[in-house]
Amino acid sequence: MNYGKIIHTLGVLLQVEGLLMSIPMLVGILYRESCWIWLGSVMVGAILLGTLLRQKKSTRERIHAKEGFVITALSWILLSIVGACPFWISGEIPSFIDAVFESASGFTTTGASILTNIEGMSHGLLFWRSLTHWIGGMGVLVFILAVLPSDADDMYLMKAESPGPSVQKMLPKVRQTAMILYGIYLALTILNILLLLIFGMPAFDAFCLSFGAAGTGGFGVKNDSIAGYSTSCQVIITIFMLLFGINFKLYFLILFRKFKDILKCEEILWYTIIYCGAVMFVVIGILKDVGSFGTALKDGAFQVASIMTTTGYATADFNLWGSMPKAILVMVMFIGACAGSTGGGIKVSRCILYFKQVKSELSHFIHPRSVKKIRLEGKAVEKETLRTSNVFLMAYILIFVVSLLIISFDGFDLESTFTAVAATQNNIGPGLGVVGPTGGYFAFSGLSKTVMIFDMIAGRLELFPMLILFAPSTWRRK
Amino acid sequence: MNYGKIIHTLGVLLQVEGLLMSIPMLVGILYRESCWIWLGSVMVGAILLGTLLRQKKSTRERIHAKEGFVITALSWILLSIVGACPFWISGEIPSFIDAVFESASGFTTTGASILTNIEGMSHGLLFWRSLTHWIGGMGVLVFILAVLPSDADDMYLMKAESPGPSVQKMLPKVRQTAMILYGIYLALTILNILLLLIFGMPAFDAFCLSFGAAGTGGFGVKNDSIAGYSTSCQVIITIFMLLFGINFKLYFLILFRKFKDILKCEEILWYTIIYCGAVMFVVIGILKDVGSFGTALKDGAFQVASIMTTTGYATADFNLWGSMPKAILVMVMFIGACAGSTGGGIKVSRCILYFKQVKSELSHFIHPRSVKKIRLEGKAVEKETLRTSNVFLMAYILIFVVSLLIISFDGFDLESTFTAVAATQNNIGPGLGVVGPTGGYFAFSGLSKTVMIFDMIAGRLELFPMLILFAPSTWRRK
Repeated sequence: MNYGKIIHTLGVLLQVEGLLMSIPMLVGILYRESCWIWLGSVMVGAILLGTLLRQKKSTRERIHAKEGFVITALSWILLSIVGACPFWISGEIPSFIDAVFESASGFTTTGASILTNIEGMSHGLLFWRSLTHWIGGMGVLVFILAVLPSDADDMYLMKAESPGPSVQKMLPKVRQTAMILYGIYLALTILNILLLLIFGMPAFDAFCLSFGAAGTGGFGVKNDSIAGYSTSCQVIITIFMLLFGINFKLYFLILFRKFKDILKCEEILWYTIIYCGAVMFVVIGILKDVGSFGTALKDGAFQVASIMTTTGYATADFNLWGSMPKAILVMVMFIGACAGSTGGGIKVSRCILYFKQVKSELSHFIHPRSVKKIRLEGKAVEKETLRTSNVFLMAYILIFVVSLLIISFDGFDLESTFTAVAATQNNIGPGLGVVGPTGGYFAFSGLSKTVMIFDMIAGRLELFPMLILFAPSTWRRK
Repeated sequence: MNYGKIIHTLGVLLQVEGLLMSIPMLVGILYRESCWIWLGSVMVGAILLGTLLRQKKSTRERIHAKEGFVITALSWILLSIVGACPFWISGEIPSFIDAVFESASGFTTTGASILTNIEGMSHGLLFWRSLTHWIGGMGVLVFILAVLPSDADDMYLMKAESPGPSVQKMLPKVRQTAMILYGIYLALTILNILLLLIFGMPAFDAFCLSFGAAGTGGFGVKNDSIAGYSTSCQVIITIFMLLFGINFKLYFLILFRKFKDILKCEEILWYTIIYCGAVMFVVIGILKDVGSFGTALKDGAFQVASIMTTTGYATADFNLWGSMPKAILVMVMFIGACAGSTGGGIKVSRCILYFKQVKSELSHFIHPRSVKKIRLEGKAVEKETLRTSNVFLMAYILIFVVSLLIISFDGFDLESTFTAVAATQNNIGPGLGVVGPTGGYFAFSGLSKTVMIFDMIAGRLELFPMLILFAPSTWRRK
């Protein structure tokens, strides 16, 4: 294990996190809130500690997949713990585990909250809470890759932090890819903020909600999430949630004017089909209760977009819906967004791969001698990708089941327990029952919260980086 | 498609089913019930139709995997429909779809019932209902293989009807294997009946309940399932449910005195570990409510055995348990029994394969150059088996999700809807909520019942035979 490299990278990470804390600190000063002192202290502490760790020089530059995974997993754990400190030492979240839960929920773009009165928080800390979504959405290591001179093997870091069955380098150099990704991300976020401002949203809300939509996070700044804003603002947020749930390859292709290739994007096609199908079913399911088709469409389109992209904003209490629309929401919870987006879940492209394997198996029974390769986006899928994708499903179920078992000790009903795990492991936020859009995660035990913190980080990093921390041979010296 | 062979086999099947109906007919005569007339008429009709169909000669003897699957799927559909006729024409189950549901639930050894008053049924039809469990447990095509001169390619039929990731021929000839399997099955069933009689159970109940335990079915003859019988009878049933959920390879090994090989049986080891672990958790979970450790152990051991072996008998209303023991039951619902047993579910051996693949993937990340084959029961697992096993999981989820969506239209709560699908697709019987041990399936719509009939047969035949019926290329002429 290349400990030098690990410690060095964690040092850089702390410096970056510290620097980023200066933004909410400024917000705190602007609103004349005392929270700026706490944000400032943690900022100084993080930068100092980071500088210290960064002194550790790596013995050799080369890192392997294992080290890439370990660095990524430890980075996200450290990120969450340090990010929790301002909440905790300011006293606005008195329990340390709750603060870490909130911070991990932020960085992993989950949006699950232990707060009971969001509007009681200071602006500075609410801003930090939403900013963690934005930082976590595209990935903090990808950010470091984009701004710092890059090493040869950093593809491993990008692989470990980017969602989806296979990471494509859009451009020959990792650093270039990372920079363009962040460029697109920033541009879309700014566009979102501007549109919300034009349609009359207060500036503070527009910033925070855009960060939450961009990262597909879901932390709001009001107790009723998005329900209180105007219809036009809700529509804008619906559209931007969907845009951030799309594979960013699309924006690359638009940027490089490869319009023909867009038509070949199977994942984006299915993302659209599943979204529209789900909205249709939900509209049918809630039409009777909400009365008008317009409201049903607005609520359905928003809630499905929010859950499928794993954002987690809400304009309606879907906990009160019938079982058919609720079943649809639970399904899109698991499907999730596109690979290569900021969203979570199993990912549309993996679901396509699973479906195609079933089809291929059936056709193998019917025509035993024909051997057909499974193709995605016009290309034959490599065996390696297929295997990793399949094992992902098994690891996913394994983590899900173990989490469900531990959390069921808290004694909440099965629907709440089941969707609490689903909503954290898929980085969504709200589930059903006690964790529904009007509920929250405060009532769970410390053990359950720890498990959910694990699930959120595991879900964000696509499971394996977190699992590898538990394999004894990871830490064994040769 | 070898239509001649298909029609011929369906003819044989009808004859066998007709002949088997003579047993409940005799029971009806014994109890002087009018139901014997209806059983007799259907018997005569089935035998005549069977004889007619059997005239159709096959153009060529050779059949392929595809035809094996189609024969198996159609056999089970026909079996269920014909088996439903006595219930329906006797008027004891007035609705045809309900009768088919009950019959399919019997043959597939599910044990899900639409009856609201079991004790109001005639003895003859109750006996037929339980006998379907016994017939379906070991498989009716395996039965035909055992009693009729076998063809060369009938391994395909056995493969399609036998549960588990890979079918082992224990003996060089399919027919021999089938005969010994049925021999063991019959011997264990008789032993079960005798023990229940010795411990004071009425003969009719002893027969019916032993059929239900042997097939891991779950139809009882009392409204309160097994709760009314003595503790000793409950313990006997617990033990026999577990015995019938074990891979029958064990009995082969005992029969041929290969005691050393028994120690190598990984699946049986894990079956025992999972069972004991689940009982432990359940006992912890219900101890407070039931008061004494003895009762908790008795109830826990029975219910976990019943659900894990996918039998579905009940001595306690586990719907009233806390969420932790309920979560455990839902988990073992999916794991199911051993491959090569009469039980359903995903099967312990498949779960082992999934777990080992996750482990192997992690070790692949840590040591990228080492290539380790996945081993089960001391042997390297073939790629083919691994692939089929993985695709099984995807097909399983696909069928589950589509069923859940359709059934959710009925508007029952999500827990009930979810466990109704789980309990039918895994061939268990009772679930939670409205389909709990004191509830039933009568309230579902005709469409939902049809979907559940599909799920029960698909679950019993390990999905692919039923899926293949829906592939257009199955029916296309070359």
